[in-house]
Amino acid sequence: MLPAQQGYDRAITVFSPDGRLYQVEYAIETVRRGTIAVGIKSKEGIVIAVEEKPRKLQITDVAQKIFQIDDHIGVAAAGYIPDARSQVDNARFFSQSNKMIYDEAVEVETIAKHLADQSQQYTQYAGVRPYGVALILGGVVNNNTQLYLTDPSGTYISYDAIAIGSGSDQVTDFLEKTYNHELSIEDASVLASAAIYLSSEDREGTSHIRMAQIKTKTETFELVSDEQIAKYAKTAKEKYPHEKK
Amino acid sequence: MLPAQQGYDRAITVFSPDGRLYQVEYAIETVRRGTIAVGIKSKEGIVIAVEEKPRKLQITDVAQKIFQIDDHIGVAAAGYIPDARSQVDNARFFSQSNKMIYDEAVEVETIAKHLADQSQQYTQYAGVRPYGVALILGGVVNNNTQLYLTDPSGTYISYDAIAIGSGSDQVTDFLEKTYNHELSIEDASVLASAAIYLSSEDREGTSHIRMAQIKTKTETFELVSDEQIAKYAKTAKEKYPHEKK
Amino acid sequence: MLPAQQGYDRAITVFSPDGRLYQVEYAIETVRRGTIAVGIKSKEGIVIAVEEKPRKLQITDVAQKIFQIDDHIGVAAAGYIPDARSQVDNARFFSQSNKMIYDEAVEVETIAKHLADQSQQYTQYAGVRPYGVALILGGVVNNNTQLYLTDPSGTYISYDAIAIGSGSDQVTDFLEKTYNHELSIEDASVLASAAIYLSSEDREGTSHIRMAQIKTKTETFELVSDEQIAKYAKTAKEKYPHEKK
Amino acid sequence: MLPAQQGYDRAITVFSPDGRLYQVEYAIETVRRGTIAVGIKSKEGIVIAVEEKPRKLQITDVAQKIFQIDDHIGVAAAGYIPDARSQVDNARFFSQSNKMIYDEAVEVETIAKHLADQSQQYTQYAGVRPYGVALILGGVVNNNTQLYLTDPSGTYISYDAIAIGSGSDQVTDFLEKTYNHELSIEDASVLASAAIYLSSEDREGTSHIRMAQIKTKTETFELVSDEQIAKYAKTAKEKYPHEKK
Amino acid sequence: MLPAQQGYDRAITVFSPDGRLYQVEYAIETVRRGTIAVGIKSKEGIVIAVEEKPRKLQITDVAQKIFQIDDHIGVAAAGYIPDARSQVDNARFFSQSNKMIYDEAVEVETIAKHLADQSQQYTQYAGVRPYGVALILGGVVNNNTQLYLTDPSGTYISYDAIAIGSGSDQVTDFLEKTYNHELSIEDASVLASAAIYLSSEDREGTSHIRMAQIKTKTETFELVSDEQIAKYAKTAKEKYPHEKK
Amino acid sequence: MLPAQQGYDRAITVFSPDGRLYQVEYAIETVRRGTIAVGIKSKEGIVIAVEEKPRKLQITDVAQKIFQIDDHIGVAAAGYIPDARSQVDNARFFSQSNKMIYDEAVEVETIAKHLADQSQQYTQYAGVRPYGVALILGGVVNNNTQLYLTDPSGTYISYDAIAIGSGSDQVTDFLEKTYNHELSIEDASVLASAAIYLSSEDREGTSHIRMAQIKTKTETFELVSDEQIAKYAKTAKEKYPHEKK
Amino acid sequence: MLPAQQGYDRAITVFSPDGRLYQVEYAIETVRRGTIAVGIKSKEGIVIAVEEKPRKLQITDVAQKIFQIDDHIGVAAAGYIPDARSQVDNARFFSQSNKMIYDEAVEVETIAKHLADQSQQYTQYAGVRPYGVALILGGVVNNNTQLYLTDPSGTYISYDAIAIGSGSDQVTDFLEKTYNHELSIEDASVLASAAIYLSSEDREGTSHIRMAQIKTKTETFELVSDEQIAKYAKTAKEKYPHEKK
Repeated sequence: MLPAQQGYDRAITVFSPDGRLYQVEYAIETVRRGTIAVGIKSKEGIVIAVEEKPRKLQITDVAQKIFQIDDHIGVAAAGYIPDARSQVDNARFFSQSNKMIYDEAVEVETIAKHLADQSQQYTQYAGVRPYGVALILGGVVNNNTQLYLTDPSGTYISYDAIAIGSGSDQVTDFLEKTYNHELSIEDASVLASAAIYLSSEDREGTSHIRMAQIKTKTETFELVSDEQIAKYAKTAKEKYPHEKK
Repeated sequence: MLPAQQGYDRAITVFSPDGRLYQVEYAIETVRRGTIAVGIKSKEGIVIAVEEKPRKLQITDVAQKIFQIDDHIGVAAAGYIPDARSQVDNARFFSQSNKMIYDEAVEVETIAKHLADQSQQYTQYAGVRPYGVALILGGVVNNNTQLYLTDPSGTYISYDAIAIGSGSDQVTDFLEKTYNHELSIEDASVLASAAIYLSSEDREGTSHIRMAQIKTKTETFELVSDEQIAKYAKTAKEKYPHEKK
Repeated sequence: MLPAQQGYDRAITVFSPDGRLYQVEYAIETVRRGTIAVGIKSKEGIVIAVEEKPRKLQITDVAQKIFQIDDHIGVAAAGYIPDARSQVDNARFFSQSNKMIYDEAVEVETIAKHLADQSQQYTQYAGVRPYGVALILGGVVNNNTQLYLTDPSGTYISYDAIAIGSGSDQVTDFLEKTYNHELSIEDASVLASAAIYLSSEDREGTSHIRMAQIKTKTETFELVSDEQIAKYAKTAKEKYPHEKK
Repeated sequence: MLPAQQGYDRAITVFSPDGRLYQVEYAIETVRRGTIAVGIKSKEGIVIAVEEKPRKLQITDVAQKIFQIDDHIGVAAAGYIPDARSQVDNARFFSQSNKMIYDEAVEVETIAKHLADQSQQYTQYAGVRPYGVALILGGVVNNNTQLYLTDPSGTYISYDAIAIGSGSDQVTDFLEKTYNHELSIEDASVLASAAIYLSSEDREGTSHIRMAQIKTKTETFELVSDEQIAKYAKTAKEKYPHEKK
Repeated sequence: MLPAQQGYDRAITVFSPDGRLYQVEYAIETVRRGTIAVGIKSKEGIVIAVEEKPRKLQITDVAQKIFQIDDHIGVAAAGYIPDARSQVDNARFFSQSNKMIYDEAVEVETIAKHLADQSQQYTQYAGVRPYGVALILGGVVNNNTQLYLTDPSGTYISYDAIAIGSGSDQVTDFLEKTYNHELSIEDASVLASAAIYLSSEDREGTSHIRMAQIKTKTETFELVSDEQIAKYAKTAKEKYPHEKK
Repeated sequence: MLPAQQGYDRAITVFSPDGRLYQVEYAIETVRRGTIAVGIKSKEGIVIAVEEKPRKLQITDVAQKIFQIDDHIGVAAAGYIPDARSQVDNARFFSQSNKMIYDEAVEVETIAKHLADQSQQYTQYAGVRPYGVALILGGVVNNNTQLYLTDPSGTYISYDAIAIGSGSDQVTDFLEKTYNHELSIEDASVLASAAIYLSSEDREGTSHIRMAQIKTKTETFELVSDEQIAKYAKTAKEKYPHEKK
Repeated sequence: MLPAQQGYDRAITVFSPDGRLYQVEYAIETVRRGTIAVGIKSKEGIVIAVEEKPRKLQITDVAQKIFQIDDHIGVAAAGYIPDARSQVDNARFFSQSNKMIYDEAVEVETIAKHLADQSQQYTQYAGVRPYGVALILGGVVNNNTQLYLTDPSGTYISYDAIAIGSGSDQVTDFLEKTYNHELSIEDASVLASAAIYLSSEDREGTSHIRMAQIKTKTETFELVSDEQIAKYAKTAKEKYPHEKK
């Protein structure tokens, strides 16, 4: 920690002399400390996946870092997970309201902008800290796959494939090298598995991988079964034999 | 205490340069300073147990760290107990409201999420400190045993067996080694007694052990009598002869 | 004062790195600085007593540290007495409301919980300091003697006999050694006198002892007359000849 | 000023590690810096008196530190006098309300408690400083003389005779030695004069003495005339020839 | 500035260890830095006067430091003049309200108390600083001359003659030596001129003197013309030939 | 910056030990850092002028530092111009309200007092900083020319001619030497041009001079055309050949 | 960072001794750290352009730093982009309201003033930080091209051509040298491309250039296609062969 930073990071979010918002940067650091999360768009639908490290007696029926927002939209989170839940609840309510008002499924971008707008406000107003979480929102609306990233700064951006959390720089490099627009949803799921192996300390088992798909055909969020994940993971290890770090 | 922490822990909950929320971590430290609490799921119901160290003239009819939320749900707490009471009151009110609105017994997860959501808010908004307590919520709904942990960060997770408070790392190791899904409620109660002996300074008597059961058969919260605890404890000492620390 | 504490005790109640709430601990220190107060349960009713050190021209008709809450409930306080008055007013109002709503005398535990809940809130929310007082609440409801302690942390616990304030550790030891469940109210009053002599600098006179009884027979709060106190005190000095400190 | 106090006295009223409320203690110091005020109960009524040091061209018709609350109640103040006025206004309004609601003259204790309750609140809640004044309230209700002291801590206590402000320790000693319950109101007025001479720098003239009486016979607040004060003072100097400090 | 004062004067008005309210004392220092203002009572009415140092092109039709409150009341101010305007507006509104409610001219003391009460509040509550101005209020009501001083502490006192602002100690000495109750309003006006010469750097001209009179005969506030001031000033220089400082 | 000032200028506007309001003085320093603005009263109307330094591609149709308030009133500003806009909007609304209520053109003094009152409040209440701008308000009402200055302290004063902003001391000296009451509006406009040349770094061109007139004849605010300014400037350079600094 | 600045930049926006608002200056520094944005007025309409540096898998259909406000108005932003979105949403709502109230297209200046007024308020009131973004607003209303800049201070100014963000000083110099009023919209688009090349690290490709036009003929905001940008860029590189830095 440099002495020049002293004071700028203690109080409510304020600008430093070099024009930075330290509290926002620290919140992004919280995201970087979280386990990896990835989202990949395929021509057949969206895949989102996260690494979860359950304790031995933890019941893993329910994913901690993957959430369903609506029939057709899911979220993968990295960072401070209780904050993710707060944003997910907000998104679910917003999505239902939208459906009731407009009588059609909400666009993923509409939700991403809604969450990002709230995140921006939490960087500008006193009495609240910024969110400490980044979200990958994926969904299919009217045959159209959509993948968005939101972060603590209030930014939201659309990607073909994106990784957040610990090791995301390395994983993003990997995705940029291997991604192409002709991926089937199976290919994308294998790629997502490979991405998690790349960042994780556990490069053998699959109990630490959680995955969900929203297929273009069904436009429906589905958690991928442990058996299916195991198959994807096996293929991933063959196809992308990462060297050990 | 490291100098680098100075300032991040004084004011309202804010991020440190390494992306941590110190006030939340300190609140979790408050939990770690509390006496041990355990929750164990068995095929016949839930067992929760705590260590209480009453003063000599204290009247111990009423458990200080075990609370009933509803007919079918109980809580074991570790940390700052007045905060536990605040959350328990909240849970009781929420549970009754739920019953009146939906005319059916509330799920344990619904309450766990409700309490965790409030805990998350107390880490994000100014004018309030985070809760200094972790709760083990156990219950049986529609023949279904449920065991949840909430903590000051706003996290809630389901477990087969879990320990919180002083010595919980060691106790968790013990539970992970000994737990299996075929435990009867008697087995689970013996295991809970053994868990408390493992953490406690008092490894002989039973006056410091408080226990409650919610049996699948009755779906009803019941405090275990001192006599019954003594029997469980006797078996525990025979079956799990922990070595002295 | 240790340097490591600097900062944690200045602002609103926050957690220290070791998980402590210093403002609450300092408030409890305020209680420890107060003169001794004791409460003792007997089979014939409750006795509460305090030490008061009036100035010479002070009118001592009205006790400063013993309060009546309702017909059947009294309080003995140690610590910052104006705070005690604030809590007593709250308890009186709560007790009357309770009587009007339920048409029966309020339980002592109900009041103890109500006061403790407020105390807990004053440790969690900004804009207010914790209460600097501990209270011994004693009463008889439906032939049932009840004795409770509340403190600045928001804890409330039931006791057979309890002491708070200056020298309370020593007095509690004494009570634990001498207390038994077969005490008559006379015995308990003598014991209370002895307890105050143990802590007080004045070990001869009785002008510094204030006492109240709530007898099981009458279920009515009564201040004990100075003459009666003198008799209890005389017996106390014979029966429990504390050595001079 | 000791370094250990740094920080505890700056912000809103908070506890110090040794359980003290510095802001309250400093407010009491403000009282000690004020000129002397005394109140004395006699069998014929109440006497209150203050020292006032008017500037030469000040118009002294109106006492600055003696106030009438109601027909039968008066106040003598020491400390920060604008705060006294605020409390006096409060007391006047409270007294009139009381009369309208209950159709009888308010008790002095009722007012003393009301003012002390407000003072206590000003030590506990943020956004306001404690009062910097102590008040001696004296009155006669239903043939009953009443004399009360309130201070910045929120304490109120009844006395036969009491002094506050600069030199009050010495004056209190003097009152304790000379006071008896058979004083006539003339005796009490002489004693009050003597008390002020004891504390004042001016031990000859009487222009710095203000006095009021509430006689049992009339139950009416009356300012004592300068001529009458001169007589009391003359007698005081003969009867209580304090040695020069 | 002494180091011991550090901290007590920064935040909201709080007590220092020696019982002082520094913010109030600093506000009074603001008054002392203002130019001189005087008020003198005569048997024929009130005179108030101030020193104003206009810049060369300033239009001096309107006095900056003398204000009319009502037909029969005027104010002379020293200190932070924008604050004076705020209090004067308050007084004007209060005076009109009073007239409408009671259908008679308001007493000067009533206004003085009203302004002082507000000043006291501004020393006790957070979110506002004390007023930085002292006011001399003079008026004639029912043939009765009244002269009052209010200051930032919330004190108000009646005087025969009073000076505030720069050099007011010296001027007050002068007034105390020269004042008598038989002054005509002409005499008082001459005395006021002399008082301003005593404090001012400009001891020759009269363009820096502003004066108003409220005569007993008319009970009406009137600004004194420059010609008339010149006559008073000429007499003043002959009658009170202050030596040069 | 002197060390003794540390602390007084950080928080909300508070008094320093020498009775100064540093935040107000710093706001006035902001005014001094602004480019020059002047206002001059002539027998034929008011002239206000400012220096503006547009960037090369800036569109200069709209003056940045001269504003119209109403048909008959204009403003010239120096200091933090966004604050000027806030006050101008306030003045426009106030002026229209006034017209609607009283059905006549508002006096300039009425607006000046209104703005100054708001400025005073912004020096006294928490949660807002003082305005960082001074305003010269000029107008003609009922054949009567009026010129007022308001500043961050909440002061408002009437002048025949006044300058604010960078170099205003020197310009004020110049105005005091050259001003007379017989100036025609042409003379005043030439004088205003000369005043700006005196303070400006650009002593040749006229693109940096903005000017407005409110003529007595029309009682209407009019911006002066660039051609006309050029003529005034030419005459100014001949009549007042300031030496180069 | 100079030590003298310590303290002025931490808390809510306050003045420094030299009359500066550091928080505003730091917010402007945030703008300077953003990538370049330019706006150019031509006789045939407005061109706005920004540099965006998308990550490899980012979907670039949607510009991040160019926004449409209404049919006829667009915005280019530099600085903290989530803040830009907040202001853009505000502008869109304001623009629609305006249309509904007045039934005509809103002026660009009206929106610029509205946004700047909000920015000014965020520099004056507590509880919010200033905006960290500058906006170039361009539009065509009634055949009239309008180009405005707003910044964090609350300033808004009209320009023929303007650049903000990283390297804007150099780009502004370039625009001042090359701009003329006879530019066609094609010319202006080429100039905008050249401006971005001048500031950008990428001086070859065009994937980092985003551009929009509002033509006078259509009065409609249109994003420029990548193909068209490539053509403009090619011409720009030929016509303005900047030397490598």
